Amino acid sequence: MPTASTSSTPSTVLSSRDLEFLLFEWLDVERLGERPRFAEHDRSSYEALLALCEEIATEHFASHYRRSDTEEPTFDGEKVTLIPEIESALRTFARADLMALTVDEEDGGLQVPHVVAAACMAWFTAANIGTAAYAFLTVANARLLLEHGSPEQVERYVRPMLEGRFFGTMTLSEPQAGSSLGDVVTRAVPADDGTYRIFGSKMWISGGDHEMGDTIVHLVLAKLPDAPAGTRGISLFVVPKHLVADDGTVGERNDVALAGINHKLGNRGTVNTAPVFGGGAFTPGGAPGAVGYLVGEPHKGLSYMFHMMNAARLGVGMSATTTAYTAYLKSLAYARSRPQGRHLGAADPAGPQVPIIEHADVRRMLLAQKSYVEGALALNLYCSRLLDEQATATDDAERLAVGQLLDVLTPIAKSWPSQWGQESCSLAIQVLGGSGYTRDFDVEAHWRDQRLNPIHEGTHGIQALDLLGRKVLGGGGASLLALAGRIGDTAARAADLGGEPAEHAAALQAVVGRLGEVTLALGGLGDPARTLANATVYLEAAGHVVVAWMWLEQLVAVGDREGDFYDGKRAAARYFFRWELPKVGAMLDLLAAGDTTTLDMQPGWF
Amino acid sequence: MPTASTSSTPSTVLSSRDLEFLLFEWLDVERLGERPRFAEHDRSSYEALLALCEEIATEHFASHYRRSDTEEPTFDGEKVTLIPEIESALRTFARADLMALTVDEEDGGLQVPHVVAAACMAWFTAANIGTAAYAFLTVANARLLLEHGSPEQVERYVRPMLEGRFFGTMTLSEPQAGSSLGDVVTRAVPADDGTYRIFGSKMWISGGDHEMGDTIVHLVLAKLPDAPAGTRGISLFVVPKHLVADDGTVGERNDVALAGINHKLGNRGTVNTAPVFGGGAFTPGGAPGAVGYLVGEPHKGLSYMFHMMNAARLGVGMSATTTAYTAYLKSLAYARSRPQGRHLGAADPAGPQVPIIEHADVRRMLLAQKSYVEGALALNLYCSRLLDEQATATDDAERLAVGQLLDVLTPIAKSWPSQWGQESCSLAIQVLGGSGYTRDFDVEAHWRDQRLNPIHEGTHGIQALDLLGRKVLGGGGASLLALAGRIGDTAARAADLGGEPAEHAAALQAVVGRLGEVTLALGGLGDPARTLANATVYLEAAGHVVVAWMWLEQLVAVGDREGDFYDGKRAAARYFFRWELPKVGAMLDLLAAGDTTTLDMQPGWF
Repeated sequence: MPTASTSSTPSTVLSSRDLEFLLFEWLDVERLGERPRFAEHDRSSYEALLALCEEIATEHFASHYRRSDTEEPTFDGEKVTLIPEIESALRTFARADLMALTVDEEDGGLQVPHVVAAACMAWFTAANIGTAAYAFLTVANARLLLEHGSPEQVERYVRPMLEGRFFGTMTLSEPQAGSSLGDVVTRAVPADDGTYRIFGSKMWISGGDHEMGDTIVHLVLAKLPDAPAGTRGISLFVVPKHLVADDGTVGERNDVALAGINHKLGNRGTVNTAPVFGGGAFTPGGAPGAVGYLVGEPHKGLSYMFHMMNAARLGVGMSATTTAYTAYLKSLAYARSRPQGRHLGAADPAGPQVPIIEHADVRRMLLAQKSYVEGALALNLYCSRLLDEQATATDDAERLAVGQLLDVLTPIAKSWPSQWGQESCSLAIQVLGGSGYTRDFDVEAHWRDQRLNPIHEGTHGIQALDLLGRKVLGGGGASLLALAGRIGDTAARAADLGGEPAEHAAALQAVVGRLGEVTLALGGLGDPARTLANATVYLEAAGHVVVAWMWLEQLVAVGDREGDFYDGKRAAARYFFRWELPKVGAMLDLLAAGDTTTLDMQPGWF
Repeated sequence: MPTASTSSTPSTVLSSRDLEFLLFEWLDVERLGERPRFAEHDRSSYEALLALCEEIATEHFASHYRRSDTEEPTFDGEKVTLIPEIESALRTFARADLMALTVDEEDGGLQVPHVVAAACMAWFTAANIGTAAYAFLTVANARLLLEHGSPEQVERYVRPMLEGRFFGTMTLSEPQAGSSLGDVVTRAVPADDGTYRIFGSKMWISGGDHEMGDTIVHLVLAKLPDAPAGTRGISLFVVPKHLVADDGTVGERNDVALAGINHKLGNRGTVNTAPVFGGGAFTPGGAPGAVGYLVGEPHKGLSYMFHMMNAARLGVGMSATTTAYTAYLKSLAYARSRPQGRHLGAADPAGPQVPIIEHADVRRMLLAQKSYVEGALALNLYCSRLLDEQATATDDAERLAVGQLLDVLTPIAKSWPSQWGQESCSLAIQVLGGSGYTRDFDVEAHWRDQRLNPIHEGTHGIQALDLLGRKVLGGGGASLLALAGRIGDTAARAADLGGEPAEHAAALQAVVGRLGEVTLALGGLGDPARTLANATVYLEAAGHVVVAWMWLEQLVAVGDREGDFYDGKRAAARYFFRWELPKVGAMLDLLAAGDTTTLDMQPGWF
């Protein structure tokens, strides 16, 4: 199987060279093989897996990217119809065992490290996020049931999902309960046989209905009759679209129907639905309500979900990164081939035009994109590497330390690529000019897809409250100290290199110091409303600091290696340190001042 | 006729209260009546006109906004079909004499000031930019012919356009000549009768074909046989879709046909075409080629166009502003009505949810939008006010001074609303959350429409080169001095007020001083490539300075007036000065360092 790096035309899906650098030259993924969990893998098996993913993503996912946007899912009142390429691509994906990459071997998985799995999945989200989402939802569902479900639930639902026969959803939101999940009102009524009957309307459910596979396994948040109010009274249920018999046979329709589907700005290949449970469209077993099976203990549904949510947030961050990454590569290919204009002061107006990559402002737009997408990809993979360290930690101290770092990095790894990936996709459009504004080129579609990322799996503002309120101040600042410690280690290594890395290290250390001071000041305001009023600025400032750190990490890995690839890394790092990191100064000033402009604003003044 | 301010439900198209403030409480438009050109108008006639525009825009333009997006123009190989609401709206518009607002009375116009006309037109671009564009292109065409065409061309083409019977286009770009107009290759061959025959393919032509009105008047850039190479060899021709007889009768088809239409990300109501002139689809008068009539003198076409282009750029800026303004108002209405979540630390999780406008982060997003759109609208109207001062200047010194100011403000008034209007529309989506990502709400469509503005009528990067290279350094810095002088006047008035206005004035003056230093440093680099490499940063820094000035101007106009409206202005000004202006610091540092990161980047390193 050929790898992309041997191909003469560079892929515009993702860069296999960059992945190789990040995984093997920087993150030293081979050394994970020293941990017993990954002892059976080595670099060559990882490379073969990545090459397989590149091939399937390119041939089966990227190939219908535009069509899945223009021919979005339809709902005729009974069935949801998708273009056939989606099911075909997912079948190929599942047959290659890609649903079960990180799952334990004993559960039928490949047991590869998260960091390798993340790189594998990056090919699919880059190629076609709308199609990849069905697989990712199914994997998330399966992993949650592996963690919290009964052995019988695992046997009945998880195995068929990992084999690609069943699909899965995460059914949380309701029309009146989006960001405020404590307000769900879907009811779960105990039945005599130990099962439950579910009644309620859900909203924003991705992959909530279609005809792919044999059935769909919904994981549904609902309230038991004795549930306390708010977030502590929510339970989790398996509610399959069809009832599944003990022998695995898919039978009678459960009472799950659609009120309709949502028509979205982007991410159109993924059907987004408003399902109704127990609305009376069907009467399984002759009784009203959708049949549901409790997962784990009553009232603990939201905590199970939030466990999954951390992984989902890292996944959203990766999707945001790869969406921007492919848009960057497409704009780069265009800039190399489109002739327009001449060099400044060119003498002959009748001479040939030059490719637009020759213009400084176009190079600015490409370099900005490069610094965003490569910085974000580094962050996403770094977090996945931490998941592996956490899962294979040999003592509690290591597990705790890694956990603190993941705590503080997760909202950033979700939000930063969502925010800057949007800017990056916008620059990709701008490089193409008028062509970029047409649907003849993909960049506009990536820009539309991208806009979902600061909204789903916890909005940008909710990530900000999570970071500042819960992860940083809620833990007494320990997680921020853990982060600063790691950044300090990197800075010390960069300082040893001298030259630009040492300069960048000093700049970064100064900003980290200021971030610490500002954090202390915010924590000491004595008024939670004021402390949290500017949490979004805090999130964005911390994000730039973390991505600058990721660039410094890459520079250390580059060392004194020679060649265009490494010179490109140096230039992108320089761009980030000179053009991006200084933006943090004004943000920290605002935070340090405890500014109350937005808090003081009265609704009547708008 | 009722004005919107008497209506109980605030308009979500535009704010009549804000327009009233800007025109009458700040820009003192009534005083324009002292100038002979506007002596016949007064505040009440302006108010009646604005109320009429609000009514027509709301009833005839906003009403089909969504439909013109979802049912975009189609081309069957012969004809372009638009939804009928577009022609109907434009007919109402023309019947109200709105095509000829600023045109001299002797040419059949209303002769109202540009600043009032701009406010009138703001209602239409806010309501439905896609439909309004047909009128605006026609007006631009008519105004160019009034300026440079022969009396006979005015009689034959301009009057029917102002009456709404003919439509007009600006036909500049070609597939190989977008930003680089010097590279147009469309040919104009002299015929024996003094007319010309035009041969060539054009691209990106808005309103380039449709069945509205009696015919379409194309203004086409083409090269005569003896034309010098580059921008100095381009002539301008009237090329009507149908030949128009001496008596005004619309007759035989000219040889103008379409190769196709473009399918765009947004602005879908405006058909965008690839016309072919002289391709042989028709043979007017039995001979090959499209019949064209020279406008003005040979080889001067581009200078005529650029005259029009300045007005067009101000128009794009206004469209960007109003697109963001209506999105802001729609997100504000949503935030007032959507219940979700509770106040921080609310004791009862079962208590009622609060409208999301109660959350600090939502108020942040609304306040940011308010500061962007009201600041940008102020800038747009200020520039229109300058056009009036220029047109009615009684001596050359005044005309020169106003011209210098317009020189430096035009690229900013085009680019700043295009850039920050995008951010503003994105915040509007974010306020709506998942709903904002659906096509059930308008905000996503405004966000898509907006993305055109940094591309057309000179890209963002081209505005930057125009500002720094031509307008500022090309004139030896005189225009920047003129701007600094005006800002100084405002700052002095604000300083007299004391308190916050005085604080803001001091902050602004400090940044203006730094901008001057940086400009000198850039001009003295001795290497034009390096001077201009970071022109985009210069444009963006200057833009924030100018909009901060516009906020200070508004604060001075607010003075000590009381009430929610004025408190809102104060809060938005505070937001801009505390949250936005400080961003300029890092930009100026970068410019002061003469950073060469993007210039040094090699294509091979990507």
